Amino acid sequence: MINKTNPGNFFEDFRLGFEFRHGAPRTVTEGDIALYGALYGSRFALTSSSEFAAASCGLPSRPVDDLLVFHLVFGKSVPDISVNAVANLGYAEGRFSTLVHAGDTVHATSKVIGLKENANRQTGIVHVRTSGYNQQGETVLDFVRWVMVRKRDPNAETGPSDVPETAPFVPPDRLIVPDGLNFGHYDPVMGGSPHFWEDYSAGERIDHIDGMTIEEAEHMLATRLYQNSAKVHFNQHAEASGRFGRRLVYGGHIISIARALSFNGLGNAVKIAAINGGRHVAPCFGGDTIYAWSRIEAAWELPGRPDIGALRIKSFAAKDHPCGDFPGDAETHPQLVLEFDYTVLMPRRF
Amino acid sequence: MINKTNPGNFFEDFRLGFEFRHGAPRTVTEGDIALYGALYGSRFALTSSSEFAAASCGLPSRPVDDLLVFHLVFGKSVPDISVNAVANLGYAEGRFSTLVHAGDTVHATSKVIGLKENANRQTGIVHVRTSGYNQQGETVLDFVRWVMVRKRDPNAETGPSDVPETAPFVPPDRLIVPDGLNFGHYDPVMGGSPHFWEDYSAGERIDHIDGMTIEEAEHMLATRLYQNSAKVHFNQHAEASGRFGRRLVYGGHIISIARALSFNGLGNAVKIAAINGGRHVAPCFGGDTIYAWSRIEAAWELPGRPDIGALRIKSFAAKDHPCGDFPGDAETHPQLVLEFDYTVLMPRRF
Amino acid sequence: MINKTNPGNFFEDFRLGFEFRHGAPRTVTEGDIALYGALYGSRFALTSSSEFAAASCGLPSRPVDDLLVFHLVFGKSVPDISVNAVANLGYAEGRFSTLVHAGDTVHATSKVIGLKENANRQTGIVHVRTSGYNQQGETVLDFVRWVMVRKRDPNAETGPSDVPETAPFVPPDRLIVPDGLNFGHYDPVMGGSPHFWEDYSAGERIDHIDGMTIEEAEHMLATRLYQNSAKVHFNQHAEASGRFGRRLVYGGHIISIARALSFNGLGNAVKIAAINGGRHVAPCFGGDTIYAWSRIEAAWELPGRPDIGALRIKSFAAKDHPCGDFPGDAETHPQLVLEFDYTVLMPRRF
Repeated sequence: MINKTNPGNFFEDFRLGFEFRHGAPRTVTEGDIALYGALYGSRFALTSSSEFAAASCGLPSRPVDDLLVFHLVFGKSVPDISVNAVANLGYAEGRFSTLVHAGDTVHATSKVIGLKENANRQTGIVHVRTSGYNQQGETVLDFVRWVMVRKRDPNAETGPSDVPETAPFVPPDRLIVPDGLNFGHYDPVMGGSPHFWEDYSAGERIDHIDGMTIEEAEHMLATRLYQNSAKVHFNQHAEASGRFGRRLVYGGHIISIARALSFNGLGNAVKIAAINGGRHVAPCFGGDTIYAWSRIEAAWELPGRPDIGALRIKSFAAKDHPCGDFPGDAETHPQLVLEFDYTVLMPRRF
Repeated sequence: MINKTNPGNFFEDFRLGFEFRHGAPRTVTEGDIALYGALYGSRFALTSSSEFAAASCGLPSRPVDDLLVFHLVFGKSVPDISVNAVANLGYAEGRFSTLVHAGDTVHATSKVIGLKENANRQTGIVHVRTSGYNQQGETVLDFVRWVMVRKRDPNAETGPSDVPETAPFVPPDRLIVPDGLNFGHYDPVMGGSPHFWEDYSAGERIDHIDGMTIEEAEHMLATRLYQNSAKVHFNQHAEASGRFGRRLVYGGHIISIARALSFNGLGNAVKIAAINGGRHVAPCFGGDTIYAWSRIEAAWELPGRPDIGALRIKSFAAKDHPCGDFPGDAETHPQLVLEFDYTVLMPRRF
Repeated sequence: MINKTNPGNFFEDFRLGFEFRHGAPRTVTEGDIALYGALYGSRFALTSSSEFAAASCGLPSRPVDDLLVFHLVFGKSVPDISVNAVANLGYAEGRFSTLVHAGDTVHATSKVIGLKENANRQTGIVHVRTSGYNQQGETVLDFVRWVMVRKRDPNAETGPSDVPETAPFVPPDRLIVPDGLNFGHYDPVMGGSPHFWEDYSAGERIDHIDGMTIEEAEHMLATRLYQNSAKVHFNQHAEASGRFGRRLVYGGHIISIARALSFNGLGNAVKIAAINGGRHVAPCFGGDTIYAWSRIEAAWELPGRPDIGALRIKSFAAKDHPCGDFPGDAETHPQLVLEFDYTVLMPRRF
């Protein structure tokens, strides 16, 4: 009689080049969209309204929020990759492809592309490229992430270090404009903001002003919605004697709060095209209030697309600290919790 | 480089007669209906069951709850009208028209119909008529509300006072019976209550008995579901040093709780036709328990409709105080938080 | 003018053989499925993915989670049966029949099959057989439950005791394999577990390891989603001076948490066929952390079905106590809160 409980993979279980097919594929529905809306209050019009998606963006109906797709694909990878993780260290080369619509089913794979044992031999860093697909096998998103994973046995032998190079950002010629997306008849009043792509310039900083307090029930609902089974988010009885004495909020929850807050200042940044990088600088807990600000990193024209421009944006989130002083810009700030580097598609004036 | 953050409108920014087209139209789905159900536990059969909507009410499927429609339309108006509000003072002349069904997209406009600066010159009262439409441009709801809004600059000159008259209630000949609504084969057992329109009479008082405690996570989920971005509901870090030291619960959340509690005593009052008035007498906070009672204000026959009668109802909600003593009836009661005057359509015995 | 508020039935109101048609039928949608997912984080692939339901299970789309169906049917019965209950004592002979899919409407009836006044004459035990139906009148679930109900008047005369015999478990030849369910092409990688029916044997014990902390907002959202109106779950103001000083968590919420945790060890137990019994050993409250373990009670072949086997499972849940020591197995354990005896259909290796 074998032990049926899955302890998850430890660092020495990973092999370079191995590809996991993650279990429990996920049908995404209007129910998930509604719940995602209630969790973050996002007001970006493309994902709020099928009428707007058609009239202003040329699409048959509103797509699923890009970050909801990210969280679902990420969640699929957790049981195989990061159940025994100490920390989720970073993301790179994230790129959104085919849009996801209500009714689609998402499944995911992860390929091990890098391994490096830490000097203390207790842990190692696993790099994976995780890809999400729809039911037709079309890629909806892929990204690289790296995560520090415990060893089961500190004395276990592991192979030589092999750490992949990743691009500092997804270059504009690799961004994918989804089939049919067209801002030729974009209505900025319905979009909720008067500012087009032309109005933004590199170096510009935007304080998103508002703050959002996190409740334990909310981050747990979110993380379960994503079927992310990482233990640290759910078990107060165990965490009471853990590292922080508290349940840890899933880092992606902070990303989605920062994105929702960014509507105030970036209201027409309706489509995320790339996740260039991300770093959870400090942990968040129930009761923390999240504020955010953004810096425009670059503004790119897209060849042959007079209707669409791209902005590379770096958003910073801080806890219990309004962002009018742009924390984390010049130097590390004690209240900073997130740096998130991403690229959006925006309507141009024409 | 202009400031991209929208500070919202202050009292001196409003002009009599100006009409706002509110941004971020909203597709309403079965997901929103499910979440609304989980937030309030409403058991009114018309909105709970498509089978009941067809068999007992003559409709093709269950419509979206009237108050969910109200909250969505209200939420659309917040960024333009009440982001800088001190208090939401009242409602009048609210009237539901075309039913909303899952899949419809709601957008909204607000016309400024009254302005009055307060004597202290710090604030003024803005009266608007807000209208919600579906994707075909049909009106789904319109109502008047007035709200006290801060001035940006107390010394700014504002025009003469101009305050509209509003009707004390929507008269029965102005109530709209939605297309197809027919109670000719109404099944009161499935409705969950044996009482028809004929069983109620003006002056009757009904204690709804049960109480519902509000959690912070719940009122924030609700208010974000409505895309209502008023800051006071979400930011504990800022509100800790604010007027109450706490996040304020969106007043509409209390209306929906009172309505859900009213099932016990008004189970067949399945359709709200009008919002005659409403007043948030005192603020509510996480941890408060809401109780409610109702007084029948009037019972009206509807000409040519032997199947449908109208009841004008005034519901009172109190916090941390059971309503067996009908608080707020004779005189002001310290625990009273809401007076809500509305008109319902009910099945008649025939 | 009669009192419109429904006080619910007291013990002396029940008559042997009476059948209640419960009010407020309920249309079940993708919204309910999403919310159920977010409340428990269930990862069973059959209910998570329509693609998996088709490719691995032979069904047109994913069905609604069996326990969500159970909670909805149970909730329908509360206003007539258990509003005045002191305690929900037990379940038996629960059997799932026709699958429920998004869009179906569920209604329910309960027949009184047993009555027994308690010696103190304050309360009595009511036994009912509750049945849930879809809009075509097909049975989706039926089960027996018994519940201790208050008397309105301790001196009221009640009839002679009449307590039904119930089967200790649903025998394998009475289990219903839903139309179309076929595990002939079951993909265990997508299922999320390598273990088939053949891998389990009677007496085997499985610790599900993880723990889930309950928040007040979560159990209230769940219980309202089920339209379960039992007062003890929602009113902190009243419960503060009640038996426990706290709101009581709906027992079914614990069943669903235990089931979701059981994915770790029983990942391919995708379909519940029967509820053999259940007992809420101790009350749960907000802040409790639930852990669970399971014992395999029996493994049955199903005649003519080389693709499907049945497992009878007894799951135990404990609060604030990890289940590596299998609490409640040999003797009562002070942290035990639930014993739940059910039967699942699992794929066989062939």
